[in-house]
Amino acid sequence: MPLRLTYLGPPGTFSEAALRTLPEAVGAEVEPAPSVVAALDAVRSGQVDAALVPFENSVEGAVPATLDELSAGPAVHIQREVLLPVRFALLGRPGTTLAQVGTVSGHPHAQPQCRHWLSANLPGRAWRPAASNADAARDVSQGHVDAALAGAFAAEQYGLEVLAHDVHDVEGAVTRFVLVGPPRTPPPATGADRTTVVAYERDDHPGALLEMLTEFAVRGVNLTRLESRPTGHGLGSYCFSLDCEGHVGDARVGEALSALHRICADVRFLGSYPRADGKTPSLRLGVADENFAAAEQWLSGIREGDGLVPAPHPTPDPTPTPTPGHSSG
Amino acid sequence: MPLRLTYLGPPGTFSEAALRTLPEAVGAEVEPAPSVVAALDAVRSGQVDAALVPFENSVEGAVPATLDELSAGPAVHIQREVLLPVRFALLGRPGTTLAQVGTVSGHPHAQPQCRHWLSANLPGRAWRPAASNADAARDVSQGHVDAALAGAFAAEQYGLEVLAHDVHDVEGAVTRFVLVGPPRTPPPATGADRTTVVAYERDDHPGALLEMLTEFAVRGVNLTRLESRPTGHGLGSYCFSLDCEGHVGDARVGEALSALHRICADVRFLGSYPRADGKTPSLRLGVADENFAAAEQWLSGIREGDGLVPAPHPTPDPTPTPTPGHSSG
Amino acid sequence: MPLRLTYLGPPGTFSEAALRTLPEAVGAEVEPAPSVVAALDAVRSGQVDAALVPFENSVEGAVPATLDELSAGPAVHIQREVLLPVRFALLGRPGTTLAQVGTVSGHPHAQPQCRHWLSANLPGRAWRPAASNADAARDVSQGHVDAALAGAFAAEQYGLEVLAHDVHDVEGAVTRFVLVGPPRTPPPATGADRTTVVAYERDDHPGALLEMLTEFAVRGVNLTRLESRPTGHGLGSYCFSLDCEGHVGDARVGEALSALHRICADVRFLGSYPRADGKTPSLRLGVADENFAAAEQWLSGIREGDGLVPAPHPTPDPTPTPTPGHSSG
Amino acid sequence: MPLRLTYLGPPGTFSEAALRTLPEAVGAEVEPAPSVVAALDAVRSGQVDAALVPFENSVEGAVPATLDELSAGPAVHIQREVLLPVRFALLGRPGTTLAQVGTVSGHPHAQPQCRHWLSANLPGRAWRPAASNADAARDVSQGHVDAALAGAFAAEQYGLEVLAHDVHDVEGAVTRFVLVGPPRTPPPATGADRTTVVAYERDDHPGALLEMLTEFAVRGVNLTRLESRPTGHGLGSYCFSLDCEGHVGDARVGEALSALHRICADVRFLGSYPRADGKTPSLRLGVADENFAAAEQWLSGIREGDGLVPAPHPTPDPTPTPTPGHSSG
Repeated sequence: MPLRLTYLGPPGTFSEAALRTLPEAVGAEVEPAPSVVAALDAVRSGQVDAALVPFENSVEGAVPATLDELSAGPAVHIQREVLLPVRFALLGRPGTTLAQVGTVSGHPHAQPQCRHWLSANLPGRAWRPAASNADAARDVSQGHVDAALAGAFAAEQYGLEVLAHDVHDVEGAVTRFVLVGPPRTPPPATGADRTTVVAYERDDHPGALLEMLTEFAVRGVNLTRLESRPTGHGLGSYCFSLDCEGHVGDARVGEALSALHRICADVRFLGSYPRADGKTPSLRLGVADENFAAAEQWLSGIREGDGLVPAPHPTPDPTPTPTPGHSSG
Repeated sequence: MPLRLTYLGPPGTFSEAALRTLPEAVGAEVEPAPSVVAALDAVRSGQVDAALVPFENSVEGAVPATLDELSAGPAVHIQREVLLPVRFALLGRPGTTLAQVGTVSGHPHAQPQCRHWLSANLPGRAWRPAASNADAARDVSQGHVDAALAGAFAAEQYGLEVLAHDVHDVEGAVTRFVLVGPPRTPPPATGADRTTVVAYERDDHPGALLEMLTEFAVRGVNLTRLESRPTGHGLGSYCFSLDCEGHVGDARVGEALSALHRICADVRFLGSYPRADGKTPSLRLGVADENFAAAEQWLSGIREGDGLVPAPHPTPDPTPTPTPGHSSG
Repeated sequence: MPLRLTYLGPPGTFSEAALRTLPEAVGAEVEPAPSVVAALDAVRSGQVDAALVPFENSVEGAVPATLDELSAGPAVHIQREVLLPVRFALLGRPGTTLAQVGTVSGHPHAQPQCRHWLSANLPGRAWRPAASNADAARDVSQGHVDAALAGAFAAEQYGLEVLAHDVHDVEGAVTRFVLVGPPRTPPPATGADRTTVVAYERDDHPGALLEMLTEFAVRGVNLTRLESRPTGHGLGSYCFSLDCEGHVGDARVGEALSALHRICADVRFLGSYPRADGKTPSLRLGVADENFAAAEQWLSGIREGDGLVPAPHPTPDPTPTPTPGHSSG
Repeated sequence: MPLRLTYLGPPGTFSEAALRTLPEAVGAEVEPAPSVVAALDAVRSGQVDAALVPFENSVEGAVPATLDELSAGPAVHIQREVLLPVRFALLGRPGTTLAQVGTVSGHPHAQPQCRHWLSANLPGRAWRPAASNADAARDVSQGHVDAALAGAFAAEQYGLEVLAHDVHDVEGAVTRFVLVGPPRTPPPATGADRTTVVAYERDDHPGALLEMLTEFAVRGVNLTRLESRPTGHGLGSYCFSLDCEGHVGDARVGEALSALHRICADVRFLGSYPRADGKTPSLRLGVADENFAAAEQWLSGIREGDGLVPAPHPTPDPTPTPTPGHSSG
């Protein structure tokens, strides 16, 4: 039976493009989902095996809908991450010239990433936000708007033409997507892994975040992302979504997560998975698995007295009598 | 000459409602701005004296556009904050029944805040994102969509009717707005102040955030908000937007900000201003202004030798001769 | 066979007085040792079952000889601690008046504890240090000196008379003694325990001590004593002798000691034993044994996938063919 | 008038040898003092200009009498430090052979430093503690004991002969002495300075030491020595004697000491003076004087609004009237 996968649709989104880079997508049944919520709900209901959704962008930051949806509802796990360069094109109906473009559409995140190009090349044009870049492309194909900011790969899908390539302002922007599946035993550690969790402060005490970061720092675990998100219980009440280097199976990561579990109101594990950039952590002295193993063995020796001289019998003699040592004492 | 103010428009937004709560707005010339960027640009160009923009929401979190725009471009300062309860209504053309509503519009943030109400009362209706809730209301008045999620106060403005009150899912949600003006000497400390800064890590070294938080913690300064934002220089490169308790004129806050300035690549001061909730910090021992003053005085006494016995003259005698003391030594 | 015990002699020392307070001493063979080294060597050679030696004093501080001797040579364990109030008397030969006292002797630590009394009552008298207070008493009995600072209980032993009671300057001074035996499994935790270790910095990096203290602090383990001692490898090279609250069998203490083992060049465990003052630690949230157990169980669930939905089979179909889902994607 | 100096006598001690290495000693009136207390009292009373006393030893650790005496009584300042290699000789009356030595004397610290040599070459000989090594030498010259552990330089002084050179067990041992004078403005910073203070915990709260160390660490100030000393108010009540790199005039050191002053019950400054080893600290980024100066200037600019656009006049118009801006708002 082929894998069943979904992504944040409609067809033609960057999410679809990211999904198409995965070996899992080859031969799989792939259907778009109308929203991040719908994509993750399809995982939760068992309708699909996994869903690919955007997680964060090097220009726009985290995708709040994804962060919040991963934290809420039944547990799901991140299985993989995908990095996709962000390259925007301006799409229009075939034959359209820039001068003929009066309205431009796209996802609300697309506009700020192309702001300079737009004001230089299409000054004063009306902006019409769409639910996704692909929706914008479809709106163009249906004649509702004149041009869409989207990936060039969406042009063919909607019978459009690339009016301008690379209209994004920042070169080298990247979006990180995650493939999310049902909770399961994490894949084996590769040595270049990442772990994602959400931690809820026990109460809003001022130093809570500092304490959490210290739990990672003392065990030599580096954080690669930290987002505060409101818990919905009023301003100033936050949870923290974070990525750290390493795998939950690593001793240092496991002990740090356990510590978080002890000091937080709640911790939700969202997965350990290979880093897309393959970067291995440089560990400081004393935090490698063998250091933990040696310390554990040392501690066991002390606690269980392995190899120690048998304990003396400190029970006083039931019928004490004065001894020479005593009387001379 | 009356004050000239702007806000994130169009008329009928929560931003306008927040602005109308301010004494400054009485008698002022008030014009809406089409975007956060436009509102702050009007401040920067001197076109207006101040702009009111949304900053964070207790359900949806920070408003990235505001965070990013405050950090970029010429400096501006937050002068004030305003807290406004979030109360959504469903607006429609007069006489509309819920059964007649086929399409619903609103700002992209409005939908998730009313999700449960919508799926219970208007299941399956098409969602049309708008640039703002007020834009959605206007679209309803112009017949483009059937209903809008907006503040009830926007109904009159656009000749609409409240089809349903209080359609938001979370009771007690609050949005925090800030009034932003040109950089100036902060208003005097009130004892219940907040200070906002943006700090850029010197380089992406793993412990940078922990170091920053420690600088606040050792001086007894509590953080009330911390957001990481991408710097645009690739995934994993962040700056931190944060609010702390206290005023830049407080010794502990000033020293903490100076420390940040020393250890960060850059720190942008965004203002010290009265807290809208009037909450005063509870200080631990040793961090009040008088403690800093006493320590400073103690240090000066040591450095400058105030009141000390004059120093002996340790210069060796130029023509040393053996002395009785020496020979007996 | 009776227990064989030793103490820092000669007979009449505070060490002997402390030993006599122990139930173990009743009926035991008790012999004095001429030095701390000799007392501990007797333990190491199996000549005695345990030795009682002074450890620290509330006025004079740690007893360096004991600290250093516990750290060096074959391992020994502290089994118990004894607190003894320090009450000095001035002892002389029967019939001596204060006016007849020309020379005063005692352990070098005795003099500073009685300094004020001596200068008020015996100004200008010669001080003759002795190897112990009991040695000083013996020297008095043998006519070498006129008076000795010692416990009043030593008078009878050496045929002396108490010339003055309570000649110590500080009321309430206490000496802490430890009963040291061969290494063995620590006695069961009582809930009011103390643990003693010596930790050697990996290298003399400036923050080593801060790191060690942080390992205890993050796990809610309070230190009750910290002494730096030179390692003998030059000025600035230290090891740290420390006591912490709790028992090596407590999860928080065990994890903290393991952490020390990982980050230090060496850690020597010197014992977990009941506190003489019976004081139980007040634990902050999250560091009790049940918190560690719950966190461990949570972590195991994640690592081993207990009760999780079976993992999907992400292996791509070996013969991928376009699917409807794909073509519609 | 020549300088008047004293040292821990009697003549022939290592203290005298250390003093003789100083240019200040040339041509000075030099008299021995019978104890550290007497030496420092001579400084306090103005009887001498400065006193040289032992401070710590790389094998035996701190000299408690010096630590305690510097902390108590009227303030004095360390002006200089001197490092002296520890080289013990065995001194006897001329013509004495090792076989003729039945009793050995010396300061109580001398014995443990020569323990191995003694047990190899003079096994079983009686040990007689003396108030100082020089006292032991005098006792030998007066025939009370047979040999003394002392510096070879003491032989001539007491008409003795060196029976054996270099009888110390550890090669490279060093004693650090300090020259103590009345409180005064510290000498100018040399770039390779040391600062000594004593800090008293505000109350015996478990994390006090960690807090103190953090105050130094956050400002990049390395500690080179830390001793805990009992305050005399019961076991578990400590003060901390410490040395740090740098000069009280350095911004980072001054701010760290001020912080200590704020969080401690008391801080006693004991001097900033050149390091005898001339070692300069390697500073991390952000803690040099110029970083503090730049941060201070930045902060002043914010607080005082230097060069800022003048503040707008936020006072509402006293007679508010609806404006076009308002009505269109």
